[in-house]
Amino acid sequence: MARPLILVSNDDGITAPGIRTLVEVAREIGEVVVVAPDGPQSGMGHAITIGNTLRLDKSIAFDDMDIEAYECSGTPADCVKLAKHHVLKDRKPDLVVSGINHGSNSSISVLYSGTMSAAIEAAIEGLPSIGFSLCDYGHEADFSHTRPFVKQIIEQALKHRIPENTALNVNFPKKSGENIKGIKICRQARAKWQEEFDERLDPRNRKYYWMTGSFVNFDKGEDTDEWALINNYISVVPCQFDMTAHHAIGILNEGWQF
Amino acid sequence: MARPLILVSNDDGITAPGIRTLVEVAREIGEVVVVAPDGPQSGMGHAITIGNTLRLDKSIAFDDMDIEAYECSGTPADCVKLAKHHVLKDRKPDLVVSGINHGSNSSISVLYSGTMSAAIEAAIEGLPSIGFSLCDYGHEADFSHTRPFVKQIIEQALKHRIPENTALNVNFPKKSGENIKGIKICRQARAKWQEEFDERLDPRNRKYYWMTGSFVNFDKGEDTDEWALINNYISVVPCQFDMTAHHAIGILNEGWQF
Repeated sequence: MARPLILVSNDDGITAPGIRTLVEVAREIGEVVVVAPDGPQSGMGHAITIGNTLRLDKSIAFDDMDIEAYECSGTPADCVKLAKHHVLKDRKPDLVVSGINHGSNSSISVLYSGTMSAAIEAAIEGLPSIGFSLCDYGHEADFSHTRPFVKQIIEQALKHRIPENTALNVNFPKKSGENIKGIKICRQARAKWQEEFDERLDPRNRKYYWMTGSFVNFDKGEDTDEWALINNYISVVPCQFDMTAHHAIGILNEGWQF
Repeated sequence: MARPLILVSNDDGITAPGIRTLVEVAREIGEVVVVAPDGPQSGMGHAITIGNTLRLDKSIAFDDMDIEAYECSGTPADCVKLAKHHVLKDRKPDLVVSGINHGSNSSISVLYSGTMSAAIEAAIEGLPSIGFSLCDYGHEADFSHTRPFVKQIIEQALKHRIPENTALNVNFPKKSGENIKGIKICRQARAKWQEEFDERLDPRNRKYYWMTGSFVNFDKGEDTDEWALINNYISVVPCQFDMTAHHAIGILNEGWQF
């Protein structure tokens, strides 16, 4: 059997340590092609580039591993679109993986996440896909404990497939003294970021702001991604791109008058 | 009773004709505050500004109507966050409305939409919210036929409330000779954009790309937003921010081996 073709992208940019870890693991399993942003694209959500041009250039970032790689001026979703319809026009990836993100993309962060937007874009394109994130924002983050699990999850995805129209959102606990307890399939916790704005003055005395904030989890459920991560499990949330609140259709039809 | 407080944002920027229409209608119903991007932010999805500073300045864009307005350097989601936690720190909007977008945000476009990201961000913040879009991309688009319906929908939302944790995605058919048939509560159609990349050479002979593409609707359902719009109805899709594919949790738990 031919080795599976695995497309790798991310949102921290093609030179981030996280994507290097992911490529190193993916190449043990299949043939790898990388199409990733040429710089950081964190927090880009499901942005795409529509009013601007896009650049796509061959990258030397993975020459040491002899892996075909491209860097793109656009967003993670752009990268997947360019990969599918341009770079891999005549070949179909067996799996798309994104990450490993430097920082959590659990619960509500999935909406803001460039890592997950690459995975969700792949799912829209009908490609099985997984976004991987580590709950450690540091550039120097230690990804070593994720490797055997990344490999296991990719192998399971290739063997058992990912349910149609879903992308997996995988988050790893930060490396600690304790061993990871295992993998849990979860739902997205009800949580939000509580923003604060740090107001400052620039050298010309004009105001500007830094967005800061803290994460608030309203959800006590033990079937959530937040519960899993706090308890040192890897969380896997299947995500869909149908945003319809189906339960609300009946409520609106009954309550509203047109 | 005090007049309701309505926060208005958009993604085409504070000077777009669409937001002017929305403000004109909203001020007939309540007190209006505008916090909108200082320039176009189309296709920004649920992007937020995390690695950069934000500007927020008083705007003169609605001085002729004596309306408090601010322009922000960030994304639509940033605008709502700044409005909630800074501009309206001591007041709570009764409703957040976004748009009216120049162009459709029906079906899959909800994911790429800056207009809807403002509405969804408001829902995450616990605020009732509606995104309005017109299926006409032109800067010169005619919004006149939307006015009575925008008013009706805002009034209904204030009277009957919007189901918790949902934001409404409202799309209007482009103005035509035919009258609009009415309003339909719908689900998001299964559809996608089929991208193509127009490859060109810059003056230095380096390649660049324009993303183009066509919309493909796979969904024949008569309960979808696409069906409603094609049949000259206004589509209203309640959207949620829980991305979990709940049905897939069981599939993964049964099929995968950990």
